[in-house]
Amino acid sequence: MLVSELVSRSGVPLASIKYYLREGLLMPGHATSATRADYDETHVRRLRLIKGLSGVGLSLGRIKAIIALIDEPGPSLFDALGTAVYALSPPPVADESHPRATAALELLGTPYLPDHPAVAQLEHALAAAEACGVGMTDDQLRAYAPHIEAIAAVDIALMPRDDPAAAIEYVVLGTILYEPIIAALRRLGHAALAADLLDKQGDLTHDV
Amino acid sequence: MLVSELVSRSGVPLASIKYYLREGLLMPGHATSATRADYDETHVRRLRLIKGLSGVGLSLGRIKAIIALIDEPGPSLFDALGTAVYALSPPPVADESHPRATAALELLGTPYLPDHPAVAQLEHALAAAEACGVGMTDDQLRAYAPHIEAIAAVDIALMPRDDPAAAIEYVVLGTILYEPIIAALRRLGHAALAADLLDKQGDLTHDV
Repeated sequence: MLVSELVSRSGVPLASIKYYLREGLLMPGHATSATRADYDETHVRRLRLIKGLSGVGLSLGRIKAIIALIDEPGPSLFDALGTAVYALSPPPVADESHPRATAALELLGTPYLPDHPAVAQLEHALAAAEACGVGMTDDQLRAYAPHIEAIAAVDIALMPRDDPAAAIEYVVLGTILYEPIIAALRRLGHAALAADLLDKQGDLTHDV
Repeated sequence: MLVSELVSRSGVPLASIKYYLREGLLMPGHATSATRADYDETHVRRLRLIKGLSGVGLSLGRIKAIIALIDEPGPSLFDALGTAVYALSPPPVADESHPRATAALELLGTPYLPDHPAVAQLEHALAAAEACGVGMTDDQLRAYAPHIEAIAAVDIALMPRDDPAAAIEYVVLGTILYEPIIAALRRLGHAALAADLLDKQGDLTHDV
């Protein structure tokens, strides 16, 4: 397709496409003349990826790191997946000890990976909750765990298995784009349950 | 307690405490002399709340809005809860129609509340995933839903019921501080499952 069609298919303006080409984020099209190039579905998909990642506020540097992994995943797809997820949100503090996260993972007894970058993220999140007086109890963690694992299993069941680039793209986008969907559904779940509860208690009109 | 003890109990520096007092975010202590005031647990708790909300990047304006609701929840606790959650993250675009969110909520058949602020958040998140070519299918939504509801039920079961201020505080902190915990556990769940899968497939050393 011509670049004009690429613009309409991807929804990315021409100026941005030219910029991504210059920066090496978008691979060049197949040159058909001195001034024309032919683009295909891989270009549409790449632009969607860039758009998606920049839409959630990722810097160009981090998007570049993720695209480099998609283009050259290296010998271990598992490591590439971990590195790509790391690029989405590097831990706020480089801290080697993760006492809260380690304890939580031990408690859950699941084969979590202590050296995965999300462990630092978990440590930071648990510490923040604790500092605010709403630290997660073991009971809360145990109640959450099976449901989060079930959600993760739904995701991984849909991961492309024979194309490492597609697998990384899926994991990166599924991580960063589904998190706000889960958060919104949880908030709506709270609202539905609170409405029920307060209605039953007659607290909707309770004078406080 | 003296203000010095309030500093050590809350972990908030004196200068910040003075600032919060001036701004009306922290209620004044009980004056015991012209230069001394007595503080109690309510002050420690309030400072933890401010610290927690500013720690996740909330502006002082939004923190003020939430504290105003805690101080005066008004006649409907349910409305106050909704307004407080709204203050956490106002929808990026004020859009009256939510076609994707409405369809998703209808599909899930749960008593979600179409006029809750998180509906706009859901609409935005579903649209972003769709634009990137990883739109949520009905099957994915149906697979997610019971687990998100179960997590929301764990949260609401722990909500304080006889103190509206405590209920708002709990919902606000539990929403904003537990979301990153859920996200980190989901990412670790992905990693554990991907490790299993790739290991079984022999893809860990698969030359790509």
